[in-house]
Amino acid sequence: MKQEETRLVTVAAESSRSGLPDSKRKRGHHVLSAAVFLAAVTGAAPTMAGSSDSSTAASQKDPATQESAKVSPGDPASSARQVRVERRTPSYWRVTFDNPPFNIFGPETIPQLNEVITAIENDPDLKVVVFDSAVPDFFLTHYDFIPPLSASTGLPSGTTGLHPLPDMLVRLSRAPIVSISLIRGRATGVGSELALASDMRFASREKAILSQWEVGAALVPGGGPMARLPRLVGRGRALEILLGANDIDGDLAEKYGYVNRSFPDDQLDGFVDAFAMRVATFDNQAIADTKRLVDFASLPSDPEIAAGWNAFITSVQRPQAQAKIKQLMQLGLQTDPEIEIRLGHYTETLGQD
Amino acid sequence: MKQEETRLVTVAAESSRSGLPDSKRKRGHHVLSAAVFLAAVTGAAPTMAGSSDSSTAASQKDPATQESAKVSPGDPASSARQVRVERRTPSYWRVTFDNPPFNIFGPETIPQLNEVITAIENDPDLKVVVFDSAVPDFFLTHYDFIPPLSASTGLPSGTTGLHPLPDMLVRLSRAPIVSISLIRGRATGVGSELALASDMRFASREKAILSQWEVGAALVPGGGPMARLPRLVGRGRALEILLGANDIDGDLAEKYGYVNRSFPDDQLDGFVDAFAMRVATFDNQAIADTKRLVDFASLPSDPEIAAGWNAFITSVQRPQAQAKIKQLMQLGLQTDPEIEIRLGHYTETLGQD
Amino acid sequence: MKQEETRLVTVAAESSRSGLPDSKRKRGHHVLSAAVFLAAVTGAAPTMAGSSDSSTAASQKDPATQESAKVSPGDPASSARQVRVERRTPSYWRVTFDNPPFNIFGPETIPQLNEVITAIENDPDLKVVVFDSAVPDFFLTHYDFIPPLSASTGLPSGTTGLHPLPDMLVRLSRAPIVSISLIRGRATGVGSELALASDMRFASREKAILSQWEVGAALVPGGGPMARLPRLVGRGRALEILLGANDIDGDLAEKYGYVNRSFPDDQLDGFVDAFAMRVATFDNQAIADTKRLVDFASLPSDPEIAAGWNAFITSVQRPQAQAKIKQLMQLGLQTDPEIEIRLGHYTETLGQD
Repeated sequence: MKQEETRLVTVAAESSRSGLPDSKRKRGHHVLSAAVFLAAVTGAAPTMAGSSDSSTAASQKDPATQESAKVSPGDPASSARQVRVERRTPSYWRVTFDNPPFNIFGPETIPQLNEVITAIENDPDLKVVVFDSAVPDFFLTHYDFIPPLSASTGLPSGTTGLHPLPDMLVRLSRAPIVSISLIRGRATGVGSELALASDMRFASREKAILSQWEVGAALVPGGGPMARLPRLVGRGRALEILLGANDIDGDLAEKYGYVNRSFPDDQLDGFVDAFAMRVATFDNQAIADTKRLVDFASLPSDPEIAAGWNAFITSVQRPQAQAKIKQLMQLGLQTDPEIEIRLGHYTETLGQD
Repeated sequence: MKQEETRLVTVAAESSRSGLPDSKRKRGHHVLSAAVFLAAVTGAAPTMAGSSDSSTAASQKDPATQESAKVSPGDPASSARQVRVERRTPSYWRVTFDNPPFNIFGPETIPQLNEVITAIENDPDLKVVVFDSAVPDFFLTHYDFIPPLSASTGLPSGTTGLHPLPDMLVRLSRAPIVSISLIRGRATGVGSELALASDMRFASREKAILSQWEVGAALVPGGGPMARLPRLVGRGRALEILLGANDIDGDLAEKYGYVNRSFPDDQLDGFVDAFAMRVATFDNQAIADTKRLVDFASLPSDPEIAAGWNAFITSVQRPQAQAKIKQLMQLGLQTDPEIEIRLGHYTETLGQD
Repeated sequence: MKQEETRLVTVAAESSRSGLPDSKRKRGHHVLSAAVFLAAVTGAAPTMAGSSDSSTAASQKDPATQESAKVSPGDPASSARQVRVERRTPSYWRVTFDNPPFNIFGPETIPQLNEVITAIENDPDLKVVVFDSAVPDFFLTHYDFIPPLSASTGLPSGTTGLHPLPDMLVRLSRAPIVSISLIRGRATGVGSELALASDMRFASREKAILSQWEVGAALVPGGGPMARLPRLVGRGRALEILLGANDIDGDLAEKYGYVNRSFPDDQLDGFVDAFAMRVATFDNQAIADTKRLVDFASLPSDPEIAAGWNAFITSVQRPQAQAKIKQLMQLGLQTDPEIEIRLGHYTETLGQD
């Protein structure tokens, strides 16, 4: 039951960039100036949270591993506030992701978001929360591939017994308030998964991009979309989104039911704000009691969510995924806006395994 | 297990109207000339039907309570025919709601509709039933708040063991015929719930309004929409409809799947009639056997419906709901067409509890 | 447990054609020159596969019956290749239905398609399969009514214990690859059911017609649409499709979610090919693991599919269905393109039973 040694994969980023034709790098961007370290544990990671046998997960943990899994205090980025809460009124909050340049979600984001979710669960006056972004072109995007995997797998389980990432998402879905994702820019990976865990989603027609890109990188998505998308949009469109792993714009997302509605970009904020203000006048007990019965009819079970998280953790350690992620990092994932903004395109350029 | 005493809330309607700006009262309408009595039992109502333990509900009932719950014979409105059946052919019936001015649904409507549902279940020649309205601007709307709550909670359980209102709705869903709601005007509360319990729904693009307005009055909807809407339109849109509690027009209802389709108003009747005539030529055994398997894949269980009804009954007795309903009655609910027609707007004006 | 004797119904096709007004036979077509034999077993068929008790189905079978159920080698049509496989690359196959003039699906098609499905399940390099048609106006249509019913009911069970037709469909849904139906022309009956069992469906806006026509012929559909459609498009639209039993064009199919999307006919092939080529670059383990979790959330169980098949077999033996099929055969079903192409219209002309 001990944590396996991590393997660091050195990516010589500069040399690999030459593989990209110039025509595909139209946007200006900073050059990757240092080697990027991509780390993953090899072999099994039996102590991670989110296993089906979540009841015993806590007791199986090696305290030392848990300690080392904490956000490294030496990293300035990890202590920066990536998730801001604005209490517009006691009953209406805005939660804003602000981790430029791409709103990448990493292990250090987890305790910050967990603090917000816990406040949402417990505030007696709160009725409605809107999630949005302060970063242009990005609502919230994929998981951070730079920290070692143990920084994620070593985090203590959440109150549901799940790994803290899916734990927060299922708690958001069940919170006795109305949660809304206001999607402008890219909602990929964790961004799409947070939106799907919200009660409803409204998107910019011109500026929203939703995607579950993971299969394009030989990964299985981990934050629940295999459970949530088929129940939301039906099996056919869910499989197209998940196995096609491509970028979905606001109009197609509305047509598919991936979002409730898309609006012209200049009307989106007004609509969401008016909707939130309206709901904020309603009775919180009626909201909670009504939502609880909808949840009974529509939410997946926690073990189903755990299975998805475990599949993600298994997939990220496979050589096929390591190779694809390495290729993407060499292309500019996490550094080059061109790659992040056109991620659906670039996953198709990686070639077959 | 005894019925609690009822509490009557006198609403001084005229005085409260002054709180509304004149600009919001453009439509002409009759002045509320008398005090309106809003009654509700306080505390628990343990003998009502529709409890999860429905198998024992009948035996727990106090016969005296059941007796007193019958529609009061002194009320002329209660004996009027609000639900008319026209047998266009032996296999094709129209059921028309005709309770002007608003098609409000009250405890006295229940035995009338029950008679119709029972006929639908048992007629060997029937194949298709279309529900429509004879009242302009209203398909069928919310529950009547004037009779004492005991007139509703005291009604004997239906054959499913549920309270007779949800009982009729689940029986309609399972009836071995095709049921269609032709929605012109407002389908709010019970109106929306009857439409959702029908096999399919076709709406006027210009004249249909669907809504589950209840949360806007601090109520939980009682006729099953928390069970039916997420399965029909997905969790996100269901929560928007239920927690936003706003008016949904024909086009948005179609986009969301709340109705099968909306049609230009002048084409709606022709389409529905042709569809009904077509199905009326088909074999009733093939209809029944096909529908039964769809039901298996799509209908909620009776206990899930019971939970929704119980949540409604609990909510209507809470002071928050009593206060909101009182405010709405003072504004003109059940008397002023302006309030009934723009109900989604007026729930937003009531202020926070 | 023995197979009942079959009853042959002779249809005097020529004489019955006079009942059709000339205006309804605009398209040129060959005259039905010989009597058509419509066969069905009478009474129960207890040894057929697909019973709920599928675990014992194989042992209950009479070996002689199984032998006789094999495709008759003397029939030249049965040995013709109706299902062709083109391996565009090792990871991307096209499966093309080519049984002119209507792509009717009969008992002799079953072993051919079974061979393809088995190859799909077992090829280690395969990632994506596209089903299409080489027959103008027809993707794949209804079951063949000319062979005796015993040619279908006598076929040995598939590996799931279901009758081989539903067996192949559920195996396709669970195969660890991406399956796509490219629908141009009519997808009726088995054609619609194969499309629904595929992972996703893309349709020609101008040339696709989807339908579950069976209730119009007093039949219950047998290949799973009562299980699959409500989960895909919601109960209301599923009941409209199944009980209305009418033709659905590409745009309405997209609006309802019956297909993922419809495209202008000249863009359909390009879109599907690009989608397939994209997915073919992805990792097959990530595809399989992601799909498996979507399947958990969205696929019906095998006993639910078995119930649908059994309901079909029961329905086809009822006199009401025999009479309607006889009428349709007399009109020109399986011989006259007019009838096949406008099947939704002609089922409405058969009159009440």
